[in-house]
Amino acid sequence: MKSENEPFFASSDKLDMDKYCVFKYYFETPFDVEDTAAHLCREQSTALWKRVDVDEDFRPVHGAKVIELKRLGTTSVPSLEALHAKGPIYNQVEVRIAHPHINFGAKLPNLMTAACGEGAFFTPGINAIKLLDIKFPDPYLKRFEGPKFGVKGIREILKVNDRPLVCGVVKPNIGLRPKDFAELAYKAYLGGIDATKDDEMLSDVEYSRTRDRVAAVIESMHKAEDRTGEKKIFIANITDEVDRILELHDMVVESGGNSVMLNGMPVGLSAVRMLSRRAKVPMFSHFDFIAPYTRHPHFGLSTQVVTKLQRLAGFDGIIMPGLGDRMNTTTEEVKENVDICLSEWGGLKASLPVPGGSDWAGSLLPMYRTFGTKDFSMVPGRGVFGHPDGPEAGARSIRQAWEAIEKNVPIEQYAETHAELKRAIGAFGKAN
Amino acid sequence: MKSENEPFFASSDKLDMDKYCVFKYYFETPFDVEDTAAHLCREQSTALWKRVDVDEDFRPVHGAKVIELKRLGTTSVPSLEALHAKGPIYNQVEVRIAHPHINFGAKLPNLMTAACGEGAFFTPGINAIKLLDIKFPDPYLKRFEGPKFGVKGIREILKVNDRPLVCGVVKPNIGLRPKDFAELAYKAYLGGIDATKDDEMLSDVEYSRTRDRVAAVIESMHKAEDRTGEKKIFIANITDEVDRILELHDMVVESGGNSVMLNGMPVGLSAVRMLSRRAKVPMFSHFDFIAPYTRHPHFGLSTQVVTKLQRLAGFDGIIMPGLGDRMNTTTEEVKENVDICLSEWGGLKASLPVPGGSDWAGSLLPMYRTFGTKDFSMVPGRGVFGHPDGPEAGARSIRQAWEAIEKNVPIEQYAETHAELKRAIGAFGKAN
Repeated sequence: MKSENEPFFASSDKLDMDKYCVFKYYFETPFDVEDTAAHLCREQSTALWKRVDVDEDFRPVHGAKVIELKRLGTTSVPSLEALHAKGPIYNQVEVRIAHPHINFGAKLPNLMTAACGEGAFFTPGINAIKLLDIKFPDPYLKRFEGPKFGVKGIREILKVNDRPLVCGVVKPNIGLRPKDFAELAYKAYLGGIDATKDDEMLSDVEYSRTRDRVAAVIESMHKAEDRTGEKKIFIANITDEVDRILELHDMVVESGGNSVMLNGMPVGLSAVRMLSRRAKVPMFSHFDFIAPYTRHPHFGLSTQVVTKLQRLAGFDGIIMPGLGDRMNTTTEEVKENVDICLSEWGGLKASLPVPGGSDWAGSLLPMYRTFGTKDFSMVPGRGVFGHPDGPEAGARSIRQAWEAIEKNVPIEQYAETHAELKRAIGAFGKAN
Repeated sequence: MKSENEPFFASSDKLDMDKYCVFKYYFETPFDVEDTAAHLCREQSTALWKRVDVDEDFRPVHGAKVIELKRLGTTSVPSLEALHAKGPIYNQVEVRIAHPHINFGAKLPNLMTAACGEGAFFTPGINAIKLLDIKFPDPYLKRFEGPKFGVKGIREILKVNDRPLVCGVVKPNIGLRPKDFAELAYKAYLGGIDATKDDEMLSDVEYSRTRDRVAAVIESMHKAEDRTGEKKIFIANITDEVDRILELHDMVVESGGNSVMLNGMPVGLSAVRMLSRRAKVPMFSHFDFIAPYTRHPHFGLSTQVVTKLQRLAGFDGIIMPGLGDRMNTTTEEVKENVDICLSEWGGLKASLPVPGGSDWAGSLLPMYRTFGTKDFSMVPGRGVFGHPDGPEAGARSIRQAWEAIEKNVPIEQYAETHAELKRAIGAFGKAN
């Protein structure tokens, strides 16, 4: 190792770890592993650590430092071809880098700049890199508010504690006028759904203004609450330009709405945090614009990092790619993201995990078995609104599926005496 | 092709193209090409286009439609392995999809949701997809304000019209106290640099508050303006959480500052647009958190799309990965991004392209030759502040390089009579 690179290595027991966030990366390099790891630290912190002709060194306070380096192996086929880092053999490396948070503060855009900005992705010698995890020290975490309502707050609205929640995405997702939209939601509520929601593509659009849609759905919701004796939620998608989201949130609340959704990454996580500080109702995320930088196994960011950042930003519920090959996310990865939402984390409230993907009544058991908790929500669309007997039957089929699970009866058997479930199996059972 | 997919195809001369944005994608599929292209349209627009038991069809108004489909070839090696779309042979396809903008409006987060949200990246049957380009119809473009100052506005501040601009990133990038930072900037200004700027990692941090840093640099700047008779710019990085950027912008302006920078994607493009509407000084972007979703040749988004979105959002200057293998961007791609900044585009002002990457005096000629215009800025860091004789000499070496170009003399020859340029060639000439 070149001597100038030594200050970019440290032992974690010699550092005051309260001052560092720890970024875990996978990377590949055709060059020297340690020098390249040091270069990764330099690029994301003090590339030049002193002025010309001044005797000083910014590395001890401001330098990022490798605290662990694992050589995983080598490959002759790079995970991603770079223009500048080429060689016959690529070393595969996992590093943990302690980055001093004095460099960026408790600010999400600045944290992202440090962890996945120019430094990490333009380090000479690295042809592929993926940010796998971020660990935050408690004093840093405490500077974030996290979810305001969390799982508990959402359950308190619904007064449902003993089962997973069911949230239906009203379909057709776009094109419906507010009155028709509300009528579909009404039927789903009657059938036993806990929440209905706007699709991620439906926001404050000219053919269905948020104000009109929310007013119509809330009327449906109250009517359904009266008839069913159950409490309900409507999640209004207020994804919009940043300067409108507070206004839209307030409009939803004034219209009697009790939840909002933001497509978090397109809007920006600090906008989510801004809204969370002021929010009077639980906030759900949707996972648009996450796959483009998370899907590659050895390049970009892990979904786990993105889930952590979303909880940190204050989402009370996090809609994420769920089970099934169609969602292109492994079962293990979905499970880890569910755990990230729910685990104890510096005193922050838990976010409700909402893993989605072609859900219908038959998806409930595999989800429940895989996650090992009732603290999640399904988010069926077609499984409710595409049910051959309509949304009321669709919603009912899912409640029936849960009854079957509670009674420990296979859904096929339970369907013999439950027509809506039987029709759901006929319609969706084979495709899934 | 399945008959239900036919409504997702159209001929562009039969559509009112003013109502559509056109998304161009590359994708791969092991399945039927046309059915998969239709599926891509469905997923990003009307996945269910009618209610159960209602005679209606949302596809004519709300459906995205394939207006061009090119079969590029086949491959047995997928560009990215998916969990669900596997086959012995993958068809490589380029499509242009007309997506009705009534679905999302003139709102950047909603546009992104449509073009690169769940729909595009979770379409069944597609194992790899990249959003290559977006074309906007004029009536849609006119709903955006674009850059407020643009190239012309930046040149008006500097009163420099006859050469490329030079903007130095003060280095060491982090760790310096405001007074020391301002002293380095002063020297660079004296040496002939047009603008100095904060590094993307340096914002309003506890060891260097924006207010203090801007005040100190502006004092240096005015002193240097008096001594050189030239006008100067300081670009203050106000990247922060969304609810602070207006305040920081105002603070910069009140302190006499004349430009700001935002790391656009971590902050969010609609926040950029919000600030642009209110901005009293030109706004520059930095390219953090773009590489993770643009670098893969067949997955994610193209940098060209991101540059377009940044101009649309109102950046007056766009800092982007520049020439040289180290920046992992081909010369052709850099050139295209420069052109996207400058080309006539629905009446929006041009953004100043600022392609960066280890720039020094010797980078100027290749940049000028490649871009074929003087309307760009360099953004050297070490090439100015790491010059062996300090930043004044570093800045001077770049002005000398431009003189050499104007006189049509090779820089090596010009360096014989210009010490700063000679030292620069000695220090940086071989490494680059």
